[in-house]
Amino acid sequence: MHLFPKSPASIGVGPLIKEMHITPIAITDPPLLNAAGLHAPFALRTVVELVTDDGITGISEIPGNIQTDEALEAARHLIIGKDPFQLGQLQYALEAHFGKESAQDRGDTPWDQRKVVHVFSALEVACLDIIGKICNRPVVDLLGGKMRDAVPFAAYLFFKYEGAGGILGRKKEPALKGWAAARQEEAVDPKGIVAQARAMCNAYGFKSIKLKGGAFEPRVETDAMLALHGEFGKEYPLRFDPNAIWKPETAYIYGKEMEGILEYLEDPVRGQENMGKLRKKLKTPLATNMCTTSFEDIPKSIRLGAEDIILSDHHFWGGLRASMQLSKLCRTFGRDLSMHSNSHLGISLAAMVHLGAALPEMPYALDTHYPWQSEEIIVGGSLEFQEGAVPVPTGPGLGVVLDKEALQRLHEAYKACGLTKRDDEVEMQKIHPEWKFQKVRW
Amino acid sequence: MHLFPKSPASIGVGPLIKEMHITPIAITDPPLLNAAGLHAPFALRTVVELVTDDGITGISEIPGNIQTDEALEAARHLIIGKDPFQLGQLQYALEAHFGKESAQDRGDTPWDQRKVVHVFSALEVACLDIIGKICNRPVVDLLGGKMRDAVPFAAYLFFKYEGAGGILGRKKEPALKGWAAARQEEAVDPKGIVAQARAMCNAYGFKSIKLKGGAFEPRVETDAMLALHGEFGKEYPLRFDPNAIWKPETAYIYGKEMEGILEYLEDPVRGQENMGKLRKKLKTPLATNMCTTSFEDIPKSIRLGAEDIILSDHHFWGGLRASMQLSKLCRTFGRDLSMHSNSHLGISLAAMVHLGAALPEMPYALDTHYPWQSEEIIVGGSLEFQEGAVPVPTGPGLGVVLDKEALQRLHEAYKACGLTKRDDEVEMQKIHPEWKFQKVRW
Repeated sequence: MHLFPKSPASIGVGPLIKEMHITPIAITDPPLLNAAGLHAPFALRTVVELVTDDGITGISEIPGNIQTDEALEAARHLIIGKDPFQLGQLQYALEAHFGKESAQDRGDTPWDQRKVVHVFSALEVACLDIIGKICNRPVVDLLGGKMRDAVPFAAYLFFKYEGAGGILGRKKEPALKGWAAARQEEAVDPKGIVAQARAMCNAYGFKSIKLKGGAFEPRVETDAMLALHGEFGKEYPLRFDPNAIWKPETAYIYGKEMEGILEYLEDPVRGQENMGKLRKKLKTPLATNMCTTSFEDIPKSIRLGAEDIILSDHHFWGGLRASMQLSKLCRTFGRDLSMHSNSHLGISLAAMVHLGAALPEMPYALDTHYPWQSEEIIVGGSLEFQEGAVPVPTGPGLGVVLDKEALQRLHEAYKACGLTKRDDEVEMQKIHPEWKFQKVRW
Repeated sequence: MHLFPKSPASIGVGPLIKEMHITPIAITDPPLLNAAGLHAPFALRTVVELVTDDGITGISEIPGNIQTDEALEAARHLIIGKDPFQLGQLQYALEAHFGKESAQDRGDTPWDQRKVVHVFSALEVACLDIIGKICNRPVVDLLGGKMRDAVPFAAYLFFKYEGAGGILGRKKEPALKGWAAARQEEAVDPKGIVAQARAMCNAYGFKSIKLKGGAFEPRVETDAMLALHGEFGKEYPLRFDPNAIWKPETAYIYGKEMEGILEYLEDPVRGQENMGKLRKKLKTPLATNMCTTSFEDIPKSIRLGAEDIILSDHHFWGGLRASMQLSKLCRTFGRDLSMHSNSHLGISLAAMVHLGAALPEMPYALDTHYPWQSEEIIVGGSLEFQEGAVPVPTGPGLGVVLDKEALQRLHEAYKACGLTKRDDEVEMQKIHPEWKFQKVRW
């Protein structure tokens, strides 16, 4: 396929990458429930810093996993000495080094477990941060420019146990107020979810609401959506995500019951075939981040008509530029694009905001776990939400600066917490020893 | 579709566009034949210059047509005062102003007749030239970086009448040598085509050969391909393009006869349905720039399996960034991407080279009419070919500089020649008054 071989292209005029720092961190995470189990007290992230020979630093943040960190380390020679603009060559070199991953490699959990996509995303975003600084432009301008000045997000609700997470685990930190207090509260029923929604929307001004389900039986979760509809349905669009844990017949029954109250239903069933069949029976648009999760998955998705909305995630889809390509692909085939998230801090949020600002179409508010996090590694602390939206950072690159002290503190927390990868099943078994992850449960 | 409205995004930190100059030019073009008739003695191009308020000039070149020039003029207020990085907003503004064009608007001729895609392409390429200059980087680095240092092109053969074109029309300029002499020669049979191929490959070092057909009956043109195969088949891949003028049964018969000697067969029939049916019957890969010509055409192309290779053209597909998106889309669906051309000068060639250099995959040498042109509007004259490939310009932006004197001279030629758009049928009727363009002829 390469009649005309890729050449180690001559180096450009700019600076070359001289250093890479890979720092795993652990951040306090409350006991949130999902189809795969329970969030551990700490969520893991990895922060990557690339430094050029003229002292420009580019940063990025990806889901934390010791295998990804090791892969980043193994890719060191592919990025050191390289021109940050040569992203096509970097991707080619990574694929040549690690082999091409397939969509199947992502695993069955709600989070993606592939290595190479995470490595490339980490390096691409850090390179774009550098490029933006070289060009004195925000990353959004490297993606085609700003279509909107602020990027709207949705309130992302979880069923959860009581507790602050982190060293407090399932205990609460006393004397907190507002959302900081509310996010410690238990929410295991419709009433708890409505209270959580109220507190989160009050604090952030969100104007869309999503509930992560898959934790309790469908009746409870559907009742929670009906309760949310009763409280917020006139004001805010609602969505629900049972993490592909429902059987097709379950999804049909409860999908029908929720018909008309959802702006979309996310991963009601597992697999593109099941999604495609259900989509023919429901009027509610279907969204996915578990059934169609890579470019490799797209042809079958289109053939089967598996979903209306792809929830991209630049960490899994090959970075910010590939996400723009996915957006074009979605528009070409009459699909919409929106955005998935995992627990994350401000570097990832900034990247998501630059991408969101560049998207030609944005019919849905994006997902973010950000309100669940109480720590930050960027100077100035957490990024601000205005009426549920994050203003696009205007500084060069990502427009956020790494707080080295906070990074070190959270790296110490990583070393202390003993976790090296996400495993929500193990966490759940600490409370319910018999509990087992099931791909399809109800 | 825009829950979150596009805002007139706040202006970036960089320079704004202050001036736009639109200059139609006419360039000497030899009497080349194709399915739509005969090339006029002059081919028309339009050169666009954008100048920022701090004096940076960005240039681009598009097919010349008075309607495009008028549309560019009508779009002046959408680009003046704007930040060259805001390409997403520019596209949105153009579509809002002119309305969205459909693939049907391209017309039945081998060249695309849509207005807005040409306007956007002209402005996008000139903006990228400016961005590259602001960032001190070649345009290729704005597209993901260089995958190869030089971009290979194919020898693009035409059946033709004798003559130099331009003011000499069907007369020859005396005392020329090499390819400059050879391109004036008649080529209306296999022998003429083989001589043309030899002269062009000698001059440029091309290592792939394409014959534009559709001018003579299939027997003559197939014989020309067989003759090329006899002369060059062991060395160079060959392709043939009858411009969609063959009936399905004709395409099947001659396609079968050429099976095994072609690397691909371009637009043997008209329409995606016919392409899809023929593709099932032939082993030779099918390529198109007439049946699938826009993102809007893609879903049906995929559904019907209409072709193996899309011949993009950044002038018609929405610019260089959209062409990169098309490349990703092609790879996603197991298609290849290569490149179409019309008569053009060095600004278009430079843009094609930057794009070609950034493409992750390049299985086929790109098309170019460049050897047929004897004039240039860039400083230093024609871009150099090395063994059939053009080294990627290394200067900032497109890396080519407009020769203002040459521009003025060719603008005078435009005013003098009396042409305002391409019409190969009218040219042919000057020689054969009864000749009529037919969408399908044989």
